[in-house]
Amino acid sequence: MRCLYYPGEGSAVVSVPPEQVLERVHAGTGLLWLDLDGEVEAASESLLSGFGFHPLAIDDALNESHVPKIDDYDDYLYVVLHAVEFQPEASDVRTHELDIFAGRTYLVTHHIERLPALETVWSMAQRGERHVVRGADFLLYELADRVVTGFMPVMDGLDEVIDQIEDEVFSDPTPRTLSRIFELKRAVLHLRRIIAPEREVLNRLARDEYAVIDPRERIYFRDVYDHLVRLYDINEALRDLVGGALDTYLSVTSNRINEIVKVLTVVTTALMPPTLIASFFGMNFLNLPFLNQPWGWVVALSLIIITFVGPLLYLRQRGWW
Amino acid sequence: MRCLYYPGEGSAVVSVPPEQVLERVHAGTGLLWLDLDGEVEAASESLLSGFGFHPLAIDDALNESHVPKIDDYDDYLYVVLHAVEFQPEASDVRTHELDIFAGRTYLVTHHIERLPALETVWSMAQRGERHVVRGADFLLYELADRVVTGFMPVMDGLDEVIDQIEDEVFSDPTPRTLSRIFELKRAVLHLRRIIAPEREVLNRLARDEYAVIDPRERIYFRDVYDHLVRLYDINEALRDLVGGALDTYLSVTSNRINEIVKVLTVVTTALMPPTLIASFFGMNFLNLPFLNQPWGWVVALSLIIITFVGPLLYLRQRGWW
Amino acid sequence: MRCLYYPGEGSAVVSVPPEQVLERVHAGTGLLWLDLDGEVEAASESLLSGFGFHPLAIDDALNESHVPKIDDYDDYLYVVLHAVEFQPEASDVRTHELDIFAGRTYLVTHHIERLPALETVWSMAQRGERHVVRGADFLLYELADRVVTGFMPVMDGLDEVIDQIEDEVFSDPTPRTLSRIFELKRAVLHLRRIIAPEREVLNRLARDEYAVIDPRERIYFRDVYDHLVRLYDINEALRDLVGGALDTYLSVTSNRINEIVKVLTVVTTALMPPTLIASFFGMNFLNLPFLNQPWGWVVALSLIIITFVGPLLYLRQRGWW
Amino acid sequence: MRCLYYPGEGSAVVSVPPEQVLERVHAGTGLLWLDLDGEVEAASESLLSGFGFHPLAIDDALNESHVPKIDDYDDYLYVVLHAVEFQPEASDVRTHELDIFAGRTYLVTHHIERLPALETVWSMAQRGERHVVRGADFLLYELADRVVTGFMPVMDGLDEVIDQIEDEVFSDPTPRTLSRIFELKRAVLHLRRIIAPEREVLNRLARDEYAVIDPRERIYFRDVYDHLVRLYDINEALRDLVGGALDTYLSVTSNRINEIVKVLTVVTTALMPPTLIASFFGMNFLNLPFLNQPWGWVVALSLIIITFVGPLLYLRQRGWW
Amino acid sequence: MRCLYYPGEGSAVVSVPPEQVLERVHAGTGLLWLDLDGEVEAASESLLSGFGFHPLAIDDALNESHVPKIDDYDDYLYVVLHAVEFQPEASDVRTHELDIFAGRTYLVTHHIERLPALETVWSMAQRGERHVVRGADFLLYELADRVVTGFMPVMDGLDEVIDQIEDEVFSDPTPRTLSRIFELKRAVLHLRRIIAPEREVLNRLARDEYAVIDPRERIYFRDVYDHLVRLYDINEALRDLVGGALDTYLSVTSNRINEIVKVLTVVTTALMPPTLIASFFGMNFLNLPFLNQPWGWVVALSLIIITFVGPLLYLRQRGWW
Repeated sequence: MRCLYYPGEGSAVVSVPPEQVLERVHAGTGLLWLDLDGEVEAASESLLSGFGFHPLAIDDALNESHVPKIDDYDDYLYVVLHAVEFQPEASDVRTHELDIFAGRTYLVTHHIERLPALETVWSMAQRGERHVVRGADFLLYELADRVVTGFMPVMDGLDEVIDQIEDEVFSDPTPRTLSRIFELKRAVLHLRRIIAPEREVLNRLARDEYAVIDPRERIYFRDVYDHLVRLYDINEALRDLVGGALDTYLSVTSNRINEIVKVLTVVTTALMPPTLIASFFGMNFLNLPFLNQPWGWVVALSLIIITFVGPLLYLRQRGWW
Repeated sequence: MRCLYYPGEGSAVVSVPPEQVLERVHAGTGLLWLDLDGEVEAASESLLSGFGFHPLAIDDALNESHVPKIDDYDDYLYVVLHAVEFQPEASDVRTHELDIFAGRTYLVTHHIERLPALETVWSMAQRGERHVVRGADFLLYELADRVVTGFMPVMDGLDEVIDQIEDEVFSDPTPRTLSRIFELKRAVLHLRRIIAPEREVLNRLARDEYAVIDPRERIYFRDVYDHLVRLYDINEALRDLVGGALDTYLSVTSNRINEIVKVLTVVTTALMPPTLIASFFGMNFLNLPFLNQPWGWVVALSLIIITFVGPLLYLRQRGWW
Repeated sequence: MRCLYYPGEGSAVVSVPPEQVLERVHAGTGLLWLDLDGEVEAASESLLSGFGFHPLAIDDALNESHVPKIDDYDDYLYVVLHAVEFQPEASDVRTHELDIFAGRTYLVTHHIERLPALETVWSMAQRGERHVVRGADFLLYELADRVVTGFMPVMDGLDEVIDQIEDEVFSDPTPRTLSRIFELKRAVLHLRRIIAPEREVLNRLARDEYAVIDPRERIYFRDVYDHLVRLYDINEALRDLVGGALDTYLSVTSNRINEIVKVLTVVTTALMPPTLIASFFGMNFLNLPFLNQPWGWVVALSLIIITFVGPLLYLRQRGWW
Repeated sequence: MRCLYYPGEGSAVVSVPPEQVLERVHAGTGLLWLDLDGEVEAASESLLSGFGFHPLAIDDALNESHVPKIDDYDDYLYVVLHAVEFQPEASDVRTHELDIFAGRTYLVTHHIERLPALETVWSMAQRGERHVVRGADFLLYELADRVVTGFMPVMDGLDEVIDQIEDEVFSDPTPRTLSRIFELKRAVLHLRRIIAPEREVLNRLARDEYAVIDPRERIYFRDVYDHLVRLYDINEALRDLVGGALDTYLSVTSNRINEIVKVLTVVTTALMPPTLIASFFGMNFLNLPFLNQPWGWVVALSLIIITFVGPLLYLRQRGWW
Repeated sequence: MRCLYYPGEGSAVVSVPPEQVLERVHAGTGLLWLDLDGEVEAASESLLSGFGFHPLAIDDALNESHVPKIDDYDDYLYVVLHAVEFQPEASDVRTHELDIFAGRTYLVTHHIERLPALETVWSMAQRGERHVVRGADFLLYELADRVVTGFMPVMDGLDEVIDQIEDEVFSDPTPRTLSRIFELKRAVLHLRRIIAPEREVLNRLARDEYAVIDPRERIYFRDVYDHLVRLYDINEALRDLVGGALDTYLSVTSNRINEIVKVLTVVTTALMPPTLIASFFGMNFLNLPFLNQPWGWVVALSLIIITFVGPLLYLRQRGWW
């Protein structure tokens, strides 16, 4: 648990010890940011109650709830956002939940893992950068903006892996390729299930009237929203690519069977007739035609060659090899 | 049939005999909960009429109607919810219907089977737990919350079975695997058909104005609604997984045919030419070339080995084995 | 053509001869039900004009129009409903159109075939059952209710046939199975195209303000609407089952090819090498190794057995048989 | 270019020479219908400007714009409709654009090809049929009605071709069948892209308030709209049929491979073992067992028969032939 | 960077040096068009700030944002459009972003590459063509119109390539064909992702009230919107064609396997039995039947021919060759 406090224009940002947090909040001036890291103990839970948050909201915040959402409690907003992280070795996407209570003069954040996006904004706030400490709504915007910006490298990572796999599918498709395609498909669907509601959250921040957000600042949330629209778009494009890779896999496999069976048929068609000829002249009838002529074997060999070359030429013409 | 009655703040919860139920209800104070278990006899049916419920609503309540819904009759709400139960051995999901009439001072529930969710709330109400007996709307919330909470283990169970099947598909797919995939698909679709309208019911409880529900309590139903949104989401993810398992099954099968045909082709291509050579020298022409040379068989054997190894090497190079 | 007339509370229902129909209608009291059966002749057509119906509505009523719909002409409603009938031998669903003009004091129905649903209501009306002759809107409700109730046995019939086919697909799929699956698919899609607009018609009867329908009776139409919602739901479930049967068919077929090719490959792999060995020792070189040893054939036989059993064991290990 | 003019009740319809058209229009009484056929020359273009049409609308009318639409310019409507024509030999659907400017006292139509629907209405107007010359909105209705009625034979034609192809798919599927399926699919999709916006145009004519259309006449456009709803429905049914034909094609092909491979496997399994036996006894070892017994060949023959019949019986039992 | 200025009716269009741009804009009369080409340097960035644009809008304009959109800042509009370019050799579609700030008396455009559409409008403006310099909204319309007109040749190019590929699929499908199909699919999806939001932008320009756009001019944007609706339609048709090509590819491949396996089976079925016969009479039993008859070989040859021709005739009858 850590806490920053910015008394107002001209003052410096200060750290606040836990026992003074509620006192500062109830004063109702300046800007306070309380960040709860990791699993929350009873102490912090009672602290949250001290803010006056609804028990249901606190409950949601302390449990992982998996879907970005926004609840309006008039005096404060409860916002759930998700940051994402790409794990290329497993073609997997991990998501980290960030719970935010945004009041007029304070922001309370909670997350289990360390979030790079939040750390960046935290140090900006610590340095008292003007556009960050302008108000709780600006802090919220900065957080949302950084979280969403963090999606782009994930998309790029997925794109790269899909590129690799597309090449693999055409050059050397194996069951391993198949299972990677399905991993990717899952990752892309996972992302979609995060981006779609996150986009909706930002849309509401950009459009709805909230007591906590200055109408003139909505344009900033609109900007993040536009960003998410574009991310959703890119994600859909990735989904098409993955779907295409799967279709290609199946087509390429089907094609290969085609080619393999062609080889089998060509070989069989070319070799069975001469084998029959040879077997014919291997019969033990003493007076088999040609058998007793000295040039008999030439006839046999000719027949063998004809029945071997004939089908080959015919299939060549039909383009089978 | 069983009935609880809570006269108000400070009093204890008491059991009410069937003949006094209507009297208490018409008094219009306190909180009464009537629970009808199993098939309903004529007696209970006339009791329900005594509450003043619309004949159509009673009809719906006594027959299984299969779809969660909410009907507003001004003085009371008629709500149908569904609890679910997972049967892992059959990869199947069973649903149990719970019919609820919610008035301002009473709650009437009806169900055929024993519902764990209802039993839990019943014993809480029996103990007179404060947040339960605060009003009929709170009782309704508690019931809805427990019913919905009961979906999660079902989802987890399905998820586990899907995991098993995905492994099976890659390692050893059999027609049994296929029929299990279809069972799962059906279970997931069944769940979807329950969750989607149940979500809609909660949405309406959270948004619409009902005389029976205190506007300030709507936030509680909103919480259950959020839970159902998340469940729907998880269910969609499960659907994707099952669909993916089916695609994988088909791809893996197609891949296997590929491999089997490859083996067939390699074997045929490697063995037919030497067999032809051997048959050739098995012809009974006396003056067949090489036949009468003592080293003739070496030539034949060489030819056999060359025509055997040659195709093998060629196909090796093309990566067929 | 037949006509019933109910003068009002306490009176008996009487049959009305065609020439008196318009007179009774224009009197504007009581309740009159005119039923036109089969193809309509010019006489009945002019009768309909006598009611004051719009020429377009009469036109629609006399021609089969194929889609349930509702048109509001202020003084009267023109409603098209469809009853269904299942023909198990052909896995087919037939629909029968029922055209209804509903005024405040009369109901005019028209249909080509005999409809069991209508006959039931007709005899109830003849007996003067109170809840039927309460008004034209109640007659309309009863008709709609019976028509919709008639869908359920059709659904059950389809369900049963689908069950049979699912078993058939796993046990013994033939092209006949395939064509039955497609017949079922068509039947289910046909039903959907009836249920969806019929649901919409009932929805409008339950929600919109019509001069002809007492607002207090709307709850009855809402009940029929709920029934249709559930039917739509069941139909969608049937559609999933049929779709699943098709997928299963394809998977099972693909699986069978797999197994057949496996057998082919095992047989070929086990028998080609020993045949080569036997052909080798069938060559006519006099000094072929082992040929002149008395134990030579044992060597050959051993080689044959080894090259026969070896591949069999190897493929056994790979689980091919 | 041709022009009709109907001065009003009681008068006869007269032909108007081009130079008098604008004069009559600006008089603002009676009903004038100007029909522009084929490619439009500069003269007609300036004529259109004389009507006071917006340059953009004239532009749209003179160029083929491919999508039915309606634009409201207050004083007049600009409507684009499409008539269709079926070409059974190519399984193709052709569409003909009809541009209509509808003012209060005039109608201007433009089309490239001769449209049977328009010709019918033209001769009705020439004969001065009362319901046609009642007003520009009635003329518009008649045109729309005839154009839409013309879709039905196209649908029937497609239906017939689909029936043929379905039979073909089950009896004797060839690549030609496949390409016809795709032609049909394209035709059905083409129709959909016409019907959907055309339906929307009629919907707007039936619902929206246009100065040009008498509110009491809207019911007529509603009738055409209902017709288009039904056509859309039938077209969707055709789409399902075509999709089903494609699925059937694939399933039947897959089934055939199955059967062919079965034959191959049965033949191979039955004939390879006896061939091995025969080759075995064809080895040139002098003291091969049984070889020197007079009954030896009976043993060999028995072995050959057993190894031939054994697999056949076994596969028969498994139902492979 | 380049700039045009049109003082008003009767004056000539003049070029404006960078340092006078802001001065002219703030005068608030006439019409000014500033075009920023390529990557923007700090100088131009500060120029944009001088216009009073919102920092977020400037940010979006200077970075490629990939999705057409429109933002309303009251005094000015920020519009992003995309022009497209077809690259037939790669079956690929490239898009070029065009950022536009449209105020009442000025237009600022920014793009990285040279856009033919913009160049055309620029030279029209330079020549002072009346309908172009009528106002900023007309300039905007002209730009949008030209950009959208530029989509048509791209569509045509795609259509042509799809035609080629369809022929290829039926005549000679190779993996190269497959990968081209997927390239096309991607291109079509790419186009859709541009056209859909671009259509939405134009829809808003044609419907919403913007201070910058004269309500009477909206009809022009409506025209561009109609054009985009049609383009979207054509693109969907292309998508169907590409999807059909993929389906055809798979069907044709499956068909080929069918044919190949048929040939294999016919060859095997025709040649294995005579080979068995020949091997039979090649056994070294001295008293094998017929072996010692002079006409014995005729029997053998007859058997060989019968077992060769028999299966061939049978399979001929079944239509396998």
